[in-house]
Amino acid sequence: MNIAILTFDEFNELDSFIAMGILNRMKAKGWNIQITCPSEQVTSMNGLTIDAQQPLEFANTADVVLFGSGMATRNIVKDKAILSRLNLNPNKQLIGAQCSGTLILSVLGLLGNMPACTDLTTKPWVIESGAEVLNQAFYAKENIATAGGCMASEYLATWVIAKLAGQKQAASAIHYVAPVGEKQRSVKHALSVVKPYL
Amino acid sequence: MNIAILTFDEFNELDSFIAMGILNRMKAKGWNIQITCPSEQVTSMNGLTIDAQQPLEFANTADVVLFGSGMATRNIVKDKAILSRLNLNPNKQLIGAQCSGTLILSVLGLLGNMPACTDLTTKPWVIESGAEVLNQAFYAKENIATAGGCMASEYLATWVIAKLAGQKQAASAIHYVAPVGEKQRSVKHALSVVKPYL
Repeated sequence: MNIAILTFDEFNELDSFIAMGILNRMKAKGWNIQITCPSEQVTSMNGLTIDAQQPLEFANTADVVLFGSGMATRNIVKDKAILSRLNLNPNKQLIGAQCSGTLILSVLGLLGNMPACTDLTTKPWVIESGAEVLNQAFYAKENIATAGGCMASEYLATWVIAKLAGQKQAASAIHYVAPVGEKQRSVKHALSVVKPYL
Repeated sequence: MNIAILTFDEFNELDSFIAMGILNRMKAKGWNIQITCPSEQVTSMNGLTIDAQQPLEFANTADVVLFGSGMATRNIVKDKAILSRLNLNPNKQLIGAQCSGTLILSVLGLLGNMPACTDLTTKPWVIESGAEVLNQAFYAKENIATAGGCMASEYLATWVIAKLAGQKQAASAIHYVAPVGEKQRSVKHALSVVKPYL
């Protein structure tokens, strides 16, 4: 199971790394989660420089593609040199987006007629791109999911694991990362958010 | 306000980057949050290589020092080449630890007689090091705080902001990062966790 978390310059650390951390709870089951970038290094909105684990083209053959978020998304959706490297297939791949990543999904035409979630800052631009924005943290339809608000990355990861490995594995991953003393409550809540879309 | 988030090889991404993301909501107020490492680059437990934003010595003059967590913490607490570079002062600095970072606090003698929080894996080693471990997500006493379970990093960040800038600023930071549709509930919960320790 190859999973690409698309991460661009000026990325929001929460939006790429929460999904990364939770999905890697499935590493022992053979899942391969990779921070996937358009260049060899990218620098976050708060000045953290990271090495790409994979080039952008890794996404085209991955089983799951998650779009992270960041301050530069409005430039990325106009950048043909980046977007032309992506050739995704929602019939064969699970595709998700976090916060401003939803704008990229919309511009790539991957939302179709489905409504979407995003953060409050990106909301007007997603509407301008032609999509309906929901006032909720998570929404999915078939193989496409979107989440809004950084910490909703947890729901995006829960959805991916529940879709591909079942709710028991998703519960186990959330149980591990949840605060001590809040583990059962966290599992119950995360599953309740994604269950209507499984 | 200089804040060092100590991040070592084999680090857990959630435990360094959730605090980083939330604390950086205070960047516009002049806060300077830096991923602080013993070498120029470190690589996470899931193979992500990052550039250090600051060398370890930055922690010694920082206003706040947070110890991240990772798979190598039991080696780090035996590594005098690393620990001898740290010279922290809990009378002048806020010092916090996430998950296995609590083991480092304990070994450095910074817990004194206070009980502590950590993750379930690290718990026996923290006990072995001489500290009492609580079955809860967050505990603080004066200038020292510990948190257990990756997502409890949110509470560590909330505590730092509430201590140094007040509860209103802490609420604003959590409001921003919380899932859409769950923002008020998230703020209320995070503040309720840290309030007894302010």
